[in-house]
Amino acid sequence: MAAAAALLLALLLAVASAPPLAAASSAGEAAAHPGYSADEGTCTVGAPAARRLELEGRGGTTGRIIDITHAYVPDLPAFAPGAATGPLVRLKASMEDGSEYNLSELRMECHMGTHVDAPGHINQAHFAAGLDVDTLDLHVLNGPALLVDVPRDTNITAEAMESLKIPKGVRRVLFRTLNTDRKLMWKKEGDMSYVGFTEDGAQWLVDNTDIKLIGVDYLSVAAFDHLISAHVVFFKNPDIIPVEGLKLDDVEAGIYMLHCLPLRLVGSEGSPVRCILIK
Amino acid sequence: MAAAAALLLALLLAVASAPPLAAASSAGEAAAHPGYSADEGTCTVGAPAARRLELEGRGGTTGRIIDITHAYVPDLPAFAPGAATGPLVRLKASMEDGSEYNLSELRMECHMGTHVDAPGHINQAHFAAGLDVDTLDLHVLNGPALLVDVPRDTNITAEAMESLKIPKGVRRVLFRTLNTDRKLMWKKEGDMSYVGFTEDGAQWLVDNTDIKLIGVDYLSVAAFDHLISAHVVFFKNPDIIPVEGLKLDDVEAGIYMLHCLPLRLVGSEGSPVRCILIK
Repeated sequence: MAAAAALLLALLLAVASAPPLAAASSAGEAAAHPGYSADEGTCTVGAPAARRLELEGRGGTTGRIIDITHAYVPDLPAFAPGAATGPLVRLKASMEDGSEYNLSELRMECHMGTHVDAPGHINQAHFAAGLDVDTLDLHVLNGPALLVDVPRDTNITAEAMESLKIPKGVRRVLFRTLNTDRKLMWKKEGDMSYVGFTEDGAQWLVDNTDIKLIGVDYLSVAAFDHLISAHVVFFKNPDIIPVEGLKLDDVEAGIYMLHCLPLRLVGSEGSPVRCILIK
Repeated sequence: MAAAAALLLALLLAVASAPPLAAASSAGEAAAHPGYSADEGTCTVGAPAARRLELEGRGGTTGRIIDITHAYVPDLPAFAPGAATGPLVRLKASMEDGSEYNLSELRMECHMGTHVDAPGHINQAHFAAGLDVDTLDLHVLNGPALLVDVPRDTNITAEAMESLKIPKGVRRVLFRTLNTDRKLMWKKEGDMSYVGFTEDGAQWLVDNTDIKLIGVDYLSVAAFDHLISAHVVFFKNPDIIPVEGLKLDDVEAGIYMLHCLPLRLVGSEGSPVRCILIK
């Protein structure tokens, strides 16, 4: 709420010094959006400040709704060693340049930041059968979920899975790992030393639990050395939904209502997603 | 569930005739995704069939979760006379071509299909103050909502608003109009004869109700003749969230839990969104 108050104050100050709100012709006198650089219209400047605020406890971790989605900013890590996401949003029409409205365009790979995989991502038969993100079951994406802490010295192996003693009947689990402690999603360089499921960990989950939604705290549900093999295990049947790149910092372990709503991207094997917990 | 069963059947047939799932080198023999054309990798073929299914009652209008989001397909209408959205998703890496995974890229204007506006869309002071979609209040975007039927012979004027007798304290209202009866969102040509809020209707809402989330069933909350003026009224204060292009076909009027989750697009004045109702 302090952040909201600060925003409101900033807004009041901006309004006090700005030209009349509805006058498109004079809007050019207002300052450029802090999220855009002046030359290219790409999102570069405001993002780091917003992310710093969030690291310090903005982002809704107090109160009833907890946002477990990373903001889409250019310095999100991408899935390659040292790679950043880069600009995703570009201002196509600008009131500052005389337009009656501001209008941005979005351009991104569908597996950037917090996102879901559809079965067709690593399984061509499922892809050919049209099992895209629009076919993902909303009754899996929405419902009670368990947030657990994985032992910090291991990938999510069969042994680690067994040690978590997740009860039968639990359908949605968010796995918090060393990735969160290392703040890997807050570093702009992709880091392939993240932890994730090994092939035997994936097989153990499929064989011994009722889990259908698997939330993880870095860009892949599978550890890098098991990247294809663990995905293949999960996608053998098309009923498991990996949700990757979640922001699980500063959330207590426990049971929440989870709402994950991907875009209805017909034909796509992945989608950016917004995920929240409600306590 | 009939659609799910049909999908499962199609999948079983595909698996029975497909090469081994994990063998990237032989994946090239599997059929192309029906949502993509062979030449450009753009989404063109599967989409109309999916939309027809949905018109006939797929899309989750039975059961506990009701999807009120339009699928993103190339033949969604765009906001200009006769304009269609066009391809949004493009396959960048393909298992059929020997990649170990399928990977799509998304490119779209942020006000296509079902989407939210942030205050900076039509208000430069708010834009300059950084009031992007990432600042929209999750406590407004999630909560109880009332779905009402607007008289079918009018824009959403002050008189129409008054006639709806929406009780004080109601914070989220989805306005179903003639647009739904005319199936405007299901036609690929943008149609500027849609109905929406007039300036006096917008002012009446601000002055006489507690509504903070305004859902409408075409691409703009404002009628075309009041496009800027009605937006200006709504965005005078930055606390109202328009949700546009909702799919309200075949949903009973009444009270639901609404979950609208836009992407966290830092710097953008709009975002595609997934919205669901839970009965």
